[in-house]
Amino acid sequence: MERNEFELIADLTRRFPARSERAGIGDDAAVTVPPGAIAVSVDSTVDGVHFDRGRSAPATIGRKALASALSDLGAMGAAAGEAYVAIGIPADLEDDAWDGICDGIAAVAAESGVSIAGGDVTRSPHLFLTVTVVGHGDSPDGLVGRWGAEPGQVVVVTGELGGAAAGLLLMSGRADAGVLSEAVTGALRARQLDPTPRLTEGVALARAGAVAMIDLSDGLASDAGHVAAASGCRLQVELPRLPLQEGVREVAAAAGLDAVELAAGAGEDYELLACIPTEGVNGARAELDRLGTPLTEIGEVTEGVGASFVDADGRPRALSGFDHLRSV
Amino acid sequence: MERNEFELIADLTRRFPARSERAGIGDDAAVTVPPGAIAVSVDSTVDGVHFDRGRSAPATIGRKALASALSDLGAMGAAAGEAYVAIGIPADLEDDAWDGICDGIAAVAAESGVSIAGGDVTRSPHLFLTVTVVGHGDSPDGLVGRWGAEPGQVVVVTGELGGAAAGLLLMSGRADAGVLSEAVTGALRARQLDPTPRLTEGVALARAGAVAMIDLSDGLASDAGHVAAASGCRLQVELPRLPLQEGVREVAAAAGLDAVELAAGAGEDYELLACIPTEGVNGARAELDRLGTPLTEIGEVTEGVGASFVDADGRPRALSGFDHLRSV
Repeated sequence: MERNEFELIADLTRRFPARSERAGIGDDAAVTVPPGAIAVSVDSTVDGVHFDRGRSAPATIGRKALASALSDLGAMGAAAGEAYVAIGIPADLEDDAWDGICDGIAAVAAESGVSIAGGDVTRSPHLFLTVTVVGHGDSPDGLVGRWGAEPGQVVVVTGELGGAAAGLLLMSGRADAGVLSEAVTGALRARQLDPTPRLTEGVALARAGAVAMIDLSDGLASDAGHVAAASGCRLQVELPRLPLQEGVREVAAAAGLDAVELAAGAGEDYELLACIPTEGVNGARAELDRLGTPLTEIGEVTEGVGASFVDADGRPRALSGFDHLRSV
Repeated sequence: MERNEFELIADLTRRFPARSERAGIGDDAAVTVPPGAIAVSVDSTVDGVHFDRGRSAPATIGRKALASALSDLGAMGAAAGEAYVAIGIPADLEDDAWDGICDGIAAVAAESGVSIAGGDVTRSPHLFLTVTVVGHGDSPDGLVGRWGAEPGQVVVVTGELGGAAAGLLLMSGRADAGVLSEAVTGALRARQLDPTPRLTEGVALARAGAVAMIDLSDGLASDAGHVAAASGCRLQVELPRLPLQEGVREVAAAAGLDAVELAAGAGEDYELLACIPTEGVNGARAELDRLGTPLTEIGEVTEGVGASFVDADGRPRALSGFDHLRSV
């Protein structure tokens, strides 16, 4: 990397042109006029911790850094606004890698309708990206925290689970694909490498009445517990109802693991878990149908504390996390 | 560092209590309702690049990380709003160092009236901090970019220059203090280690009619050029008018350097340079007097390009940057 800080900023200004006159790279700060309330979230990804620079495609590093940050906005029901990207650049980063990372960020920004409005470039012994995302809501009441769940409400989840963990099992060689088609295993790997932030789904769920939401980055077992703790009630999840991504059962079996436990215990699927009053569920499902994303009832909110997980016959099952199955 | 991510977030939630119900740590994102326009800026500081973890006091690392980020809000004339702190934590970071960094951040936040509303903690091979700051303005027109300077306006600078570079010369042993008092040399070192963001000064300058501003992080020679380039005109600075911090002349002489060139060429004083119509200067100076901060006219905006620097007799002087005198 021969270019200095100013040349890199000039490069970013060219790559990420301002979408409005007021929000652009190259001043001391970007100026925007939010429509009402804003939701702000920050996520860092670090070489050797969240990805491996020697093995990950640069575009994938950039895509996942922005996508995982945007996932938090989805969990608030916030509309995409601006993103700010701080990059720590090691001296030996190749120009191609820089280009790839920037291209990956730009692609996810375009797909999500988010504007790259600023950031920072600095030298660093290790490659890292810190992405700050700003989402928009008409008012604070239109944005959904983790703390609004109440007994009697329904627990729903978007999309399908377990794919990110199964993808990691395949890529790390801890499971083989057996008779699964390339389409199926490719989708599992893509879920791990290139998650889709559920931004429009989050806005739709908020509009349909969701009162507590979280994105499944740590895994259902852990994340449902976060909602329960913040809301002061219990989330009871029926494990057989979890919507598993195609191929998760086979990959889990090949690795000697229980597929449902894998889907509940491992993270990085970046689906949304929401708590919603019973009367809102059909409307929410209709909204998500229109987006092509399934919505599945997986449990209910009850009096009590924490998240609990039950089998088909109602017997409680203890779930452990699968920290060793997260790329993080 | 024995604590995991969730324990560290709990620690941060205790250290940085929410100042309003909507803006707090521990949800997917912090929710705020800005009063009008927002200015957003991001700054990373990295061990081995911006500070040396083995030699810098942890509180100083935290203080400077937040202060230098807030300086960019000062340069916009934005009022302090929220800050979001992402920290990359190496496995061998001592608990005392974590505490010190957090204490330093908390102290500058309290001094500046900024709320720590969120952030991220992650493992990292190297210690780094990425600070995102959000400042507030009534409207976009009340926030000051770099691009509004016009010929005939006056170039002013807040406070005093050269102190950060002189402090670094002292600390690195490249100059000795001679007969300077401990009070004077201590103030020079403090300017380097613990800069003060000119937040209230920036708001006052914006209110008094400043039309282009920048904070002097890279150094006057470089930063005046940024304003000139963004505004499409020339900034002509009379070097003898630069307000030098006490002791800068002596330290520069001890290092065999020209004091004025040092003050103009080296960075990190974090004072503000502003361009303001002639009729606004007295009002601006009166405002800053009330804050106890000097305001000095150092030149004028003319037709042309770039920044130019002239001696007392009007002869142009070429200035080179002092990159080797920046801790960055």
